Amino acid sequence: MTQNSAKNETIKVAVIGASGYTGAELARLLASHPRAELSIATASGERAGQKISDLFPSLRGVCDVVCEEYSAEKIANECDFVFIALGHGKAMEIAPDLIKSEIKICDLGADFRLRDAAQYKQWYKLDHGASELLAQSVYGLPELHRAKIKGAQLVANPGCYVTSGVLALMPFMAADAIKPHSIIIDAASGTSGAGRSSFSIDFHFAEVHDNFKAYGVAGHRHTPEIEQTLTDACVDPNDPDRQARVCFTPHLLPIARGLLSTCYAAPFGELSREHTTEKAHAILRDYYADEPFVRVLPSGQYPQIKSVVGSNFCDIGVAVDARTERVIVISALDNLLKGASGQAIQNMNLMCGFEETDGLKSAALFP
Amino acid sequence: MTQNSAKNETIKVAVIGASGYTGAELARLLASHPRAELSIATASGERAGQKISDLFPSLRGVCDVVCEEYSAEKIANECDFVFIALGHGKAMEIAPDLIKSEIKICDLGADFRLRDAAQYKQWYKLDHGASELLAQSVYGLPELHRAKIKGAQLVANPGCYVTSGVLALMPFMAADAIKPHSIIIDAASGTSGAGRSSFSIDFHFAEVHDNFKAYGVAGHRHTPEIEQTLTDACVDPNDPDRQARVCFTPHLLPIARGLLSTCYAAPFGELSREHTTEKAHAILRDYYADEPFVRVLPSGQYPQIKSVVGSNFCDIGVAVDARTERVIVISALDNLLKGASGQAIQNMNLMCGFEETDGLKSAALFP
Amino acid sequence: MTQNSAKNETIKVAVIGASGYTGAELARLLASHPRAELSIATASGERAGQKISDLFPSLRGVCDVVCEEYSAEKIANECDFVFIALGHGKAMEIAPDLIKSEIKICDLGADFRLRDAAQYKQWYKLDHGASELLAQSVYGLPELHRAKIKGAQLVANPGCYVTSGVLALMPFMAADAIKPHSIIIDAASGTSGAGRSSFSIDFHFAEVHDNFKAYGVAGHRHTPEIEQTLTDACVDPNDPDRQARVCFTPHLLPIARGLLSTCYAAPFGELSREHTTEKAHAILRDYYADEPFVRVLPSGQYPQIKSVVGSNFCDIGVAVDARTERVIVISALDNLLKGASGQAIQNMNLMCGFEETDGLKSAALFP
Amino acid sequence: MTQNSAKNETIKVAVIGASGYTGAELARLLASHPRAELSIATASGERAGQKISDLFPSLRGVCDVVCEEYSAEKIANECDFVFIALGHGKAMEIAPDLIKSEIKICDLGADFRLRDAAQYKQWYKLDHGASELLAQSVYGLPELHRAKIKGAQLVANPGCYVTSGVLALMPFMAADAIKPHSIIIDAASGTSGAGRSSFSIDFHFAEVHDNFKAYGVAGHRHTPEIEQTLTDACVDPNDPDRQARVCFTPHLLPIARGLLSTCYAAPFGELSREHTTEKAHAILRDYYADEPFVRVLPSGQYPQIKSVVGSNFCDIGVAVDARTERVIVISALDNLLKGASGQAIQNMNLMCGFEETDGLKSAALFP
Repeated sequence: MTQNSAKNETIKVAVIGASGYTGAELARLLASHPRAELSIATASGERAGQKISDLFPSLRGVCDVVCEEYSAEKIANECDFVFIALGHGKAMEIAPDLIKSEIKICDLGADFRLRDAAQYKQWYKLDHGASELLAQSVYGLPELHRAKIKGAQLVANPGCYVTSGVLALMPFMAADAIKPHSIIIDAASGTSGAGRSSFSIDFHFAEVHDNFKAYGVAGHRHTPEIEQTLTDACVDPNDPDRQARVCFTPHLLPIARGLLSTCYAAPFGELSREHTTEKAHAILRDYYADEPFVRVLPSGQYPQIKSVVGSNFCDIGVAVDARTERVIVISALDNLLKGASGQAIQNMNLMCGFEETDGLKSAALFP
Repeated sequence: MTQNSAKNETIKVAVIGASGYTGAELARLLASHPRAELSIATASGERAGQKISDLFPSLRGVCDVVCEEYSAEKIANECDFVFIALGHGKAMEIAPDLIKSEIKICDLGADFRLRDAAQYKQWYKLDHGASELLAQSVYGLPELHRAKIKGAQLVANPGCYVTSGVLALMPFMAADAIKPHSIIIDAASGTSGAGRSSFSIDFHFAEVHDNFKAYGVAGHRHTPEIEQTLTDACVDPNDPDRQARVCFTPHLLPIARGLLSTCYAAPFGELSREHTTEKAHAILRDYYADEPFVRVLPSGQYPQIKSVVGSNFCDIGVAVDARTERVIVISALDNLLKGASGQAIQNMNLMCGFEETDGLKSAALFP
Repeated sequence: MTQNSAKNETIKVAVIGASGYTGAELARLLASHPRAELSIATASGERAGQKISDLFPSLRGVCDVVCEEYSAEKIANECDFVFIALGHGKAMEIAPDLIKSEIKICDLGADFRLRDAAQYKQWYKLDHGASELLAQSVYGLPELHRAKIKGAQLVANPGCYVTSGVLALMPFMAADAIKPHSIIIDAASGTSGAGRSSFSIDFHFAEVHDNFKAYGVAGHRHTPEIEQTLTDACVDPNDPDRQARVCFTPHLLPIARGLLSTCYAAPFGELSREHTTEKAHAILRDYYADEPFVRVLPSGQYPQIKSVVGSNFCDIGVAVDARTERVIVISALDNLLKGASGQAIQNMNLMCGFEETDGLKSAALFP
Repeated sequence: MTQNSAKNETIKVAVIGASGYTGAELARLLASHPRAELSIATASGERAGQKISDLFPSLRGVCDVVCEEYSAEKIANECDFVFIALGHGKAMEIAPDLIKSEIKICDLGADFRLRDAAQYKQWYKLDHGASELLAQSVYGLPELHRAKIKGAQLVANPGCYVTSGVLALMPFMAADAIKPHSIIIDAASGTSGAGRSSFSIDFHFAEVHDNFKAYGVAGHRHTPEIEQTLTDACVDPNDPDRQARVCFTPHLLPIARGLLSTCYAAPFGELSREHTTEKAHAILRDYYADEPFVRVLPSGQYPQIKSVVGSNFCDIGVAVDARTERVIVISALDNLLKGASGQAIQNMNLMCGFEETDGLKSAALFP
């Protein structure tokens, strides 16, 4: 790796779980990445032996790698970097083997995000099979943990809802400007977040189209991850009054890609004394002044999904409703890019010493 | 009218503004109403002289009434009932003339909803031209004001967001079970709510499709109407602590019809002492036990837009998030039916002594 | 039945396969039918024992009949009429038992549509298990076989593509005005035509949304049914030169409901000598002058899906492209109404001596 | 220019009409083009003075060029290449001035596509104001005219429907394998093809969504352009029997981007003697063996819009229906990329001596 990350050399990359949407998105992004190339793609069952472009005809001529069965040894021997793009519960089975080699790992699932194995069990109803790795896993939100990510061997890529909600509220937690127990995140996502293999009636076209509904009400699994990460960002994570407590309600939008969070909190401290949109906007703007993938919109403007789908950007806008004493922060991102595979590439770039924006410069496809 | 409302007789109805979506929806509903028939439809400009079914080919063979220019005298002379389906600011110009006759009036716009003309001016930026009628106008939410509606000559039909949000929260206000200053309504609607004549780029297909965004953040005009109506429903409307204060954020969904509100409030009183979903569900269920158009879903189930579009139903579900101390009430309706023209027909039925469900029995068109 | 069909009496109806989209649509339509009521609804597996409104929450309070396992005996004893709403191959297993009683039967599947069992085997890859019933089965297209339908015990309800294509072209076949070997039908349908149980990736929301593609190219199973029916309508079905030969290409639209066929043929006879849109329009208009559910649009206007979805109408328009010598006939219908359950109710009305339009008067839900 | 097109140097580009969808798409593509940069963007009225990213928030941080009023002199002085992205009738007003300088021009409109000014007048109802330029204009379909494009100063970029239909049928015209008078093109496009400024009710979200309809039946303006180009591709353009005569019916899809054409023709010559899908597939495959942006799908597979949207690819599949003696060729492309701005960049690449695929390597955004 040391040699590989030298200027102008490229690394070899494996994608475990290339038959899903996040896996295919990684293949698409790697196809135009200047420093990395997809070397091994795994899929199971009848999909092993097929080209990625047989599974996703959009990739014909762009990425025609043949999927193969998973082999830890082969990946460790031949690749410099591996993405794990499987459902939760799977990465903890294979990471312990992989991590023994020097390969760097970015897991797109939930297994290494929560630091507390007991909390994992509570929300995912599974015993954690690799809890010994939790201490060394770095939570892959570059806007919060950039330095640690650069030195990590194992990065846990954040969930899509988490990225959106946390990017919206983190600056206010860091500025001690909202009450951490007052937070409500009302979010809506396209269906690709649920993956390609969700064959239930819930994702049948005729049932989702023209529809809109909440799900996971008062119990969605991203909740503890949001709370952990917002708490990490606050001025004193050990102060119970400053630890985030979040009421989170996701909804299913009749679109394939895109996620928007409308977040509410009561102003606190400085923002309580001067509860204006201008003040809140300044907090946002200052916090993200140097971030390549967060766009703070001009005061009075709010994000829309269509301005970010196809890009790795997260757009954020804010208003203060002085009448009801609420800060309203709205953020939008593409759940498969900044909410999953795009952010994973961003983490790879950091872990491998590349430019952070390599392979991620596309604007949204509008209209 | 007394004679007309006798059994098996039908009344003659006028629709002012038949070229808009709510006007066309009234024409569609009246076409299968057992006690009322569309007699006069008005439209202005080049649309006068055209059949409604020229403007809306869906109505060919169903309603082929020819639109004509508005004449107060003709309507008062020939009709028993009139719907005003115009943008705000128009009904207050024509209602004073109409009300001198004995004709009954249901206005689908905003002009007669707020009891306080000053508040109207504040939110709509218009002087109220017929404030003398505000005292006699009855707010047309049957679930709250059924008795008054039956005796009214002038009914102000509620806004779509208002109907959805108020039906969700009203039972809890009436039970003194939520804190009135803690209310947040996060809602999403299809584009038909904005009307047919909104030719701005904001409603261009390619800009709305696959998109989702908030609008009117911290300042939407339905806010004071929601607050007035929720306050009307509370145990003591004169107690400032019990008057509703609502943070309301509407969003635009990439669908034509349908509206869903996700409402948040802090539990109070009884519900605070016993903050369970079961308790909240019982409050809802008891309140709406006899309502023909409100369906309280079984505990643990939540509404979806597709189950109500095409019907006059409002579906409601509730959860209590004990961990964060929030009541989450979700309601869904068809913004052109229970949110506009369907509720207007329901009001007409009450005002004219018909069965409340006459002409409104259709189930949602699913899928 | 004789008594039941007397004025103001209602019949008892069974729906076999109530858990599918066509079954649910029958339940919805029967709920507001003046002469028929849903008495028995069948479903298999874990769905037996559930209310239809548990399977389709849109029907809550509208139709709460409990589904039960299929019993030929019970249906024959208790019902006057039965709809079979199952996939192909199933009706031929149960119809022989049912038909022994006096119950009237409308099968919404393909089993009794083709008169030739060999052709059935060729296109459906199944031996026909009840070919002895083919002779007495009447093809349920009222615009072509109304008189026979009135006297039938077993009616085969046409396919959705067939109804659309045949209604468009039949008047020209009957007038000997097109060349029967020149016909091309290019059609597009929403996904509900494929049913609710199609859990393949092909009907996953994220794969259908924003997409459009042809399927069944040069081999769709509706082809022989289109040819048989168009040939039935021609001036001499025994003349090989007059038998229809149809190149049919269906496409999948990213909508739930609605079907549009654009049909091409070379003009013949009278229309060849005078190949004008006016002439073609006159042929259409005359043919359908008295039909309650076919709307021939004014010359120069063409159908759109949104004007028919939610109604039992089929809208038709025509143009003659004199430059290329083509007649272009376009028709639109709701695949679950005139293309399936609506037409089935229409057939029931005819078979039971009701008004043909009973329960079918709704206009399209627009927008 | 000679110097500019030297290796690794970049050219300066102007986009006239940057406030439309094709203009914005050019800005997006140029932002990641290795050899060209957007230097001048023009817009008129209140849009002059605004950043492109104010008009299209998706471009914030990607392309923040400020729009200015059009000045032929400034563009000619400062730029090497200009795209004209205006409605028809406008390019013929400004091209005569621009062409006097050495600037290279690609017009995305219709003005320089038809070689015959009389035909232009017939179909566009406008006198051609710059017919003297028609002789030197090169039709910008690289798959047909690559060599000429390389040497051209003025290229007329093809229409979206034309590109799709011609790419599908051209190989068969060139092989003398279809009857040129038998061609039918049945096509469907998303709404972005109509542009951003089409504010009529026809493009209102609620009217297009869930809808599908034909338009321009038997008279769409792309017809003569299709015929001219297919004739150019045939074995003897001067033989009237070999000149294409096309019946073309476009439809409006409820999507923003993407176009699919289903093309029908009677087999001829070799393909008539051996009318099999394999034979037809071989003709396609051979013709496009070396094309970078045409993907001939494996035999038995057909294109879908979602596999090309976001890319510059045109996917093509073919079937022969031996029973009805029809060749069915289906092609799909992104109307704003291979159907407009992507193809324009491809033409720029050829005209400037760049790699033909520069800036055009993105795969489709799937799902």
